[in-house]
Amino acid sequence: MEPLFAFTPAQEIEQRICRVQSEMAAEGVDALLVTSNTNIYYTTGRVINGYVYIPASGHAVYFVRRPVGIEGDNVVYIHKPEQILGKIEELGLSRPDTLGYELGALDCVTFSRLDKAFDGIRSVNISPLFRRVRSVKSAYEIDKLKLSGVKHERVYRRIPHIYREGMTDIELQIEIERVSRLEGCLGQFRIAGESMELFMSNILVGDNADAPTPYDFAMGGRGLDPSLPVGADGTVIKGGMSVMVDSNGNFTGYMTDMTRVYALTQLNELASRAHQCSIDICRCLEREAKPGVAASHLYETAMAMVKERDLERYFMGYAQKAGFIGHGVGIEINELPVIAPRSRDILALNNVIAIEPKFVIPHVGAVGIENTYVVTDSGLKSLTNAPEGIVSLL
Amino acid sequence: MEPLFAFTPAQEIEQRICRVQSEMAAEGVDALLVTSNTNIYYTTGRVINGYVYIPASGHAVYFVRRPVGIEGDNVVYIHKPEQILGKIEELGLSRPDTLGYELGALDCVTFSRLDKAFDGIRSVNISPLFRRVRSVKSAYEIDKLKLSGVKHERVYRRIPHIYREGMTDIELQIEIERVSRLEGCLGQFRIAGESMELFMSNILVGDNADAPTPYDFAMGGRGLDPSLPVGADGTVIKGGMSVMVDSNGNFTGYMTDMTRVYALTQLNELASRAHQCSIDICRCLEREAKPGVAASHLYETAMAMVKERDLERYFMGYAQKAGFIGHGVGIEINELPVIAPRSRDILALNNVIAIEPKFVIPHVGAVGIENTYVVTDSGLKSLTNAPEGIVSLL
Repeated sequence: MEPLFAFTPAQEIEQRICRVQSEMAAEGVDALLVTSNTNIYYTTGRVINGYVYIPASGHAVYFVRRPVGIEGDNVVYIHKPEQILGKIEELGLSRPDTLGYELGALDCVTFSRLDKAFDGIRSVNISPLFRRVRSVKSAYEIDKLKLSGVKHERVYRRIPHIYREGMTDIELQIEIERVSRLEGCLGQFRIAGESMELFMSNILVGDNADAPTPYDFAMGGRGLDPSLPVGADGTVIKGGMSVMVDSNGNFTGYMTDMTRVYALTQLNELASRAHQCSIDICRCLEREAKPGVAASHLYETAMAMVKERDLERYFMGYAQKAGFIGHGVGIEINELPVIAPRSRDILALNNVIAIEPKFVIPHVGAVGIENTYVVTDSGLKSLTNAPEGIVSLL
Repeated sequence: MEPLFAFTPAQEIEQRICRVQSEMAAEGVDALLVTSNTNIYYTTGRVINGYVYIPASGHAVYFVRRPVGIEGDNVVYIHKPEQILGKIEELGLSRPDTLGYELGALDCVTFSRLDKAFDGIRSVNISPLFRRVRSVKSAYEIDKLKLSGVKHERVYRRIPHIYREGMTDIELQIEIERVSRLEGCLGQFRIAGESMELFMSNILVGDNADAPTPYDFAMGGRGLDPSLPVGADGTVIKGGMSVMVDSNGNFTGYMTDMTRVYALTQLNELASRAHQCSIDICRCLEREAKPGVAASHLYETAMAMVKERDLERYFMGYAQKAGFIGHGVGIEINELPVIAPRSRDILALNNVIAIEPKFVIPHVGAVGIENTYVVTDSGLKSLTNAPEGIVSLL
């Protein structure tokens, strides 16, 4: 037998659940049922096949289907969700009038079955509630992110030593994947929403950076196969091309996001200038971004700097543009807040955000950096500290 | 500009859509809206951010949001799904009375928005329809699977040369990942349903094979982190332990699934006998599995062989057992038919199925093989032809 909280301190989990419950009170939700791996991990510190039932107050109940062998207060093994309501009543908890579901992540067939199992109980969507709660990280979570950042940085420092003459983008990517995995990268890349797909990293060399993708990432790339049209496409790395490396930073279940640019020879003036603009935007936003500041203000500040330097044509893509310059990160790569012109998000203390002002320069490729930051009272604190200039691969 | 059917012949796509339409006719569905990457890939040969609208007869309409630059008959760029109904009427197509959605893969929030955009039109679930259609592969798809099998097999033949003394399971896995990627593996591992997660491969050494996971895979493993509790856990490979390698076979957008067992020294009698039982089950099912045969019959046949040899205690897990011995494969790793005791699936010509009768032997680990097969009139034809005996790593 293994305790439910074998991996994350019970107190940390309790605090998370308290924060969920205080949001539930504000929204008038009597109870909620957690169903996604992401939020099950958030509310247990592990992945289980089952359901976490959180009442408006008091302890959560953990309904487990698999794996066998978990024990703890309020751990109840079930075969099917139709057993949950009866078990809740057996535990002396009252039947809720409204029950929250993660409707943004739950498929309609599964929801329909659950809704029948909780017959007569009104359903409400608590996906936004969880996104809000998870956007403010605890000290425990920030430690996980810091550790990811340290390991992530180690990988980036090794990239110039990995390069060998004549390599293609994908050959370089494969060696980066290997070094990353040996450093402890878990590989898995949790993304909210079903339609985003990416394997490990996005490495863009030369004009492939301008190939538009169906995905809503900051940059594109043709990919190796039409079944996964994003990233490296087999371009041979040559002088004058930029090599943008945006690689997976999931070393702890919490991801840092980082981008750096490499090159064989000095890039042209426009590319160098755009890269410097990206660094300058990061420096500026590091000062500007404090609790209470609007996410849209960060976007506008960046865009004003881009326009002032006449770089708008290249900003966030050339053939196709991304509509944001940053996003929250944590268990998933696309958390709140979203740094975009129409974002209504307001920065809060201990948000963790990736900022990625990038440019695509025709005939050169993608330039710009990305760092993952914690929002503190004095501005942003970077978790990803590899050198930011364009690094020579030679 | 790039033609919509740049990657898959238009004729192949037309045939797929015809098969979808003939199932629609049988179910009385007037039109359907494809929303998942999996079925968008199936009905276009590529991934787009958008919707494929398939009427009961005639050509499909391709509503594209991203990427920019696709052209073709019936390609219509839109910003939001609320535009679809108007565009359909502009194209002279009639307004449907019933509209099919992939409710098994569509989240409730997105569905609710679509359902409003198609106000007054009755929604029906066409996830099962697509699963049925996709379970019977075309010659074009079987060629993709064959190519995946050839490349997959090449990776397995290199495994004994990859091993170095003192390696842990994860170190071996990382080198297999690298060889696999260099051979063209796309890495991405499409799985139906949100709750299944696995990175690249499941490599199980010794007793870690018996660690139960939350996931519904055939085998388990503790994993390296509670955020992804499956597979390799850092066990050092030693004599007497089995090394089971179940690795990603996605080289073409279509996956083959294959498992082989390696060891440093000869495994004990029980493990050797169980491994031979797995091979014998495959040989037997290769003859038995023909169009018209019930999937449950294959399971029962395997189970009878297992019982006859007194191996039931170890079959499909020891601490926790999987409830199936095989599954369809294709664009996703868990397609139809399902080879399980209560499966109602009947084998059809050109189903492609993975069969994986496996055992967990205490103190040794997992043994058994897995092959991917095409169902033909004369039985199963294997696409994964690496040697099946326990291979020495020395």
